[in-house]
Amino acid sequence: MEELKQRIRAEGQVLGDGILKIDSLLNHQIDPGLVMRCGQALALRFADKGVTRILTAEVSGIAPAFATGVALNVPIVYARKIKPVTMSGPVFLETAPSHTKGGDVNLLVAAEFLPPGERVLIIDDFLASGRTLKSLIRIIHSANCVLVGIAAVVEKGFDTGRASLEIYGVPIEALVTISSMDNGHIEFA
Amino acid sequence: MEELKQRIRAEGQVLGDGILKIDSLLNHQIDPGLVMRCGQALALRFADKGVTRILTAEVSGIAPAFATGVALNVPIVYARKIKPVTMSGPVFLETAPSHTKGGDVNLLVAAEFLPPGERVLIIDDFLASGRTLKSLIRIIHSANCVLVGIAAVVEKGFDTGRASLEIYGVPIEALVTISSMDNGHIEFA
Repeated sequence: MEELKQRIRAEGQVLGDGILKIDSLLNHQIDPGLVMRCGQALALRFADKGVTRILTAEVSGIAPAFATGVALNVPIVYARKIKPVTMSGPVFLETAPSHTKGGDVNLLVAAEFLPPGERVLIIDDFLASGRTLKSLIRIIHSANCVLVGIAAVVEKGFDTGRASLEIYGVPIEALVTISSMDNGHIEFA
Repeated sequence: MEELKQRIRAEGQVLGDGILKIDSLLNHQIDPGLVMRCGQALALRFADKGVTRILTAEVSGIAPAFATGVALNVPIVYARKIKPVTMSGPVFLETAPSHTKGGDVNLLVAAEFLPPGERVLIIDDFLASGRTLKSLIRIIHSANCVLVGIAAVVEKGFDTGRASLEIYGVPIEALVTISSMDNGHIEFA
């Protein structure tokens, strides 16, 4: 997705330790037109997969998952990190390490929003280590749903996420893949 | 907004202590078509206000703010509750009590995304006590931006939020207003 590459080249900041800041586009400020086009592009890649639901993790996954859900016309469920009082009834709970916040975070999904048999596409902002995505996959399996694909807006191709997710045998898609951020310089694959 | 009233009547749950659960529509699962139409309806009400930016608070404000930002074609900024490592540089920080999570939460906005003079519309999922919205207003004032309006998807008309926000002299809009939730029964104004 050339538009996204250009914006990341212009506005992305490499903060060290493999962290890319794209807060002006997606992670703090959201560019609505760009993110809607990202959602449309992701939706196209899974148009023939019979997706019935999208699963993401709060916070940064919500905007691209929502944009993809608009394009595919399916509900989006976002895993919560803290249980609000409105979350009554049984939940699926997994734990994942956080790259940008430190420590472990919980990921909670109310069982009522993942009924058995749903065909679920996972969307997140980044595919890096893949650990958040793996926690979401465990939730999908616990719910007896079918994982049909994994997608990210930006993949860090120099990290191990894609390799660790290939065992699930589903398409793994990213709109752009960064091959290197050495010396603060962003190179795309 | 009749469609939203019908959905809240059908799917909303009154959990006591003034808490309304609409997790199937907005707060855990997102209905993409409904939320996009909510955003379009909110955008119409502020179409002549010269809005240049939308401010909301993570997590539940993001979807309706994004949908409104798509319709108005302006960037959305969501206040973070926890500082991620990508949040470098000066921030505006306010504290607000959380109705659904308990305790106080921080609201952080990087100064770079609220440059002076922006005309800011605040969007949130609920207008109840108005305390989260007041914290966002303090951030807007600290940033030397102009508050042009306050909007929520659902207003709890029996709470004090609207009265406490009228001092700011800007339009306060909600798509639906609930006048009572006594005995678990939802009445609209």
